[in-house]
Amino acid sequence: MLAPAAALGIDLVTLANNSNDSAAQSSPHVVGDFKDLATVREFAKQCDLITFEHELIPISIVRTLESEGFKFAPSANAFQFSQDKALMRGKLAMLSNPKWQLVTEAVDWQYPAIAKAISGGYDGRGVWKLESKTDLEKLLKEVPKLILEELIEFDFEIAVMVARSPHGQAATWAPTRTVQLDGICTETVTPVPEFNESQSQAAQNLALKIADEIGLVGVMAVEMFVKGDQLFINELALRPHNSGHWTIEGSVTSQFEQHLRAILDLPLGDTSMTAKWAVMGNVLGGNKTDMYRPYLHLMARTPALKFHHYRKEVRPGRKIGHVNITGDNLVELRNEVAHALAYLSGEIDE
Amino acid sequence: MLAPAAALGIDLVTLANNSNDSAAQSSPHVVGDFKDLATVREFAKQCDLITFEHELIPISIVRTLESEGFKFAPSANAFQFSQDKALMRGKLAMLSNPKWQLVTEAVDWQYPAIAKAISGGYDGRGVWKLESKTDLEKLLKEVPKLILEELIEFDFEIAVMVARSPHGQAATWAPTRTVQLDGICTETVTPVPEFNESQSQAAQNLALKIADEIGLVGVMAVEMFVKGDQLFINELALRPHNSGHWTIEGSVTSQFEQHLRAILDLPLGDTSMTAKWAVMGNVLGGNKTDMYRPYLHLMARTPALKFHHYRKEVRPGRKIGHVNITGDNLVELRNEVAHALAYLSGEIDE
Repeated sequence: MLAPAAALGIDLVTLANNSNDSAAQSSPHVVGDFKDLATVREFAKQCDLITFEHELIPISIVRTLESEGFKFAPSANAFQFSQDKALMRGKLAMLSNPKWQLVTEAVDWQYPAIAKAISGGYDGRGVWKLESKTDLEKLLKEVPKLILEELIEFDFEIAVMVARSPHGQAATWAPTRTVQLDGICTETVTPVPEFNESQSQAAQNLALKIADEIGLVGVMAVEMFVKGDQLFINELALRPHNSGHWTIEGSVTSQFEQHLRAILDLPLGDTSMTAKWAVMGNVLGGNKTDMYRPYLHLMARTPALKFHHYRKEVRPGRKIGHVNITGDNLVELRNEVAHALAYLSGEIDE
Repeated sequence: MLAPAAALGIDLVTLANNSNDSAAQSSPHVVGDFKDLATVREFAKQCDLITFEHELIPISIVRTLESEGFKFAPSANAFQFSQDKALMRGKLAMLSNPKWQLVTEAVDWQYPAIAKAISGGYDGRGVWKLESKTDLEKLLKEVPKLILEELIEFDFEIAVMVARSPHGQAATWAPTRTVQLDGICTETVTPVPEFNESQSQAAQNLALKIADEIGLVGVMAVEMFVKGDQLFINELALRPHNSGHWTIEGSVTSQFEQHLRAILDLPLGDTSMTAKWAVMGNVLGGNKTDMYRPYLHLMARTPALKFHHYRKEVRPGRKIGHVNITGDNLVELRNEVAHALAYLSGEIDE
């Protein structure tokens, strides 16, 4: 999804695991293993600057190549907070974290509690709810090092997208309400319907503080829990993120364009919304593998609905695309998105 | 610029003259000569459907390949009206043409008059103003077959973009005022500031009639002259067109996405505007060949300005990109675009 933003005049090339990868299908690419130092080094030789679309590249590779003079944005020193939750919690200790502790053995704690893998969690994987010390003891047998976190009985979850340039210019978008089902984000609504102006500002300020604290370059999603007037940092993702997909049509500047501007130290674009509301729905694979007939139906029903198809093989529960819609009437927009998701996944037939 | 619209889930491949072509740099491509039948046939074999980005492919190639079973959208029967001005004038004789005549020898006529080459005109090339029969006589020695047209002393020029599907669904966007300098469009403003609702409807209705009359499939630009309450058809372009570039940010559905929906016979998207006004400016090559510093300046000055860089070699007067901006205040938007164009071409330095 970065490719269209290259209309700025930028030559993008992707290091893809294989030529069927979504990114490989829409940009020039090199096929290779991003976990192999020599492969990444060869790739790096043709780039002025390298950035990330996911968190899976070993940080040791980034550090080694940085020491050899290759440029990454964000740098390893910032990107590590996206990969290592213990480092992130430690770095942001002065900000609004839940109570937390790094554990390698069962401890007394206020149960129920949340346990998280240090790295590699995604879409609800790597997160467990523990009812007791016994649960922790069992889990540690499988995952020997964990973060234990206070269970926040939050009212709802939000994400704030923030961009920051090397020279320190930063910009946020309106905070986004994220709706999760079984740990997977299914829908986002922007701006957060429950927020007043000062709550919206507080969330954006927190994201800006984190961006500055970790030396962010590029865009970052800050996932937060909201409980009354309190905000708690949940996760960071130092890259264009699912909770910012609404910006493609919903903002004057999309997170993808902004990411490129930020990493290249170009002035940031206007993050105003193009409409009062922007609703995004994640299309999860279901029992339909042929998307042609659902498209026909949904395009005819909702001419304002925007489709973003990732060209991934359809598997049940896999994110295979998203839909966006913008407008004035939030109830109608959410209804259209809910209908589209149910229809695309095969849950309903009309 | 069609490539981002392939997020609908479409596999695009471009037949490019060489791998430095703009389209080749942003989509999978085959390099080959579109004027060579065998080359186009080989290319066609890997496509379910072929469409056009310019008018230069010989119609005989399209007809031959259609007879062999390859599918084109628009078809040769429609596309020919984009290539042959005499055919177009003849086909649309019942609609609002200027007076016109096909000439191969000097004739008495109401001079001054306009002469046009039958095909191949572009950006003011292939169009001449004739003061007398003697002028025509001279011109015919160079161009033996011409269309002679009544000189319309128009108030201004507009373009209407229209999309039509094989099953006959059609949609227009708000009419666009086009501003020309030396025959080259430098700026567009949408909607036409001088129009009231009924004039806007009349222009859109004329475009819809033409689309139906010629059996359009895909999008088409209808360039028109406006004189008082009268509209005169000037030119047709059966493809995404410069006068529709504002739709990338200015409309819920861009002309590029709509073109793909139309040729694939998918329901058309919403053509509403995303803001009150959309202004587009064509960036013409000037004495600056390095766009980096102008970008820095303009991005810092106008965070809402959107850049579309074509990755063409900079040559004086060549269209190398365009900028878009949307908003409420037309005077400010036009000022920002005028400043950007002057700055990018090197006319001003601050």
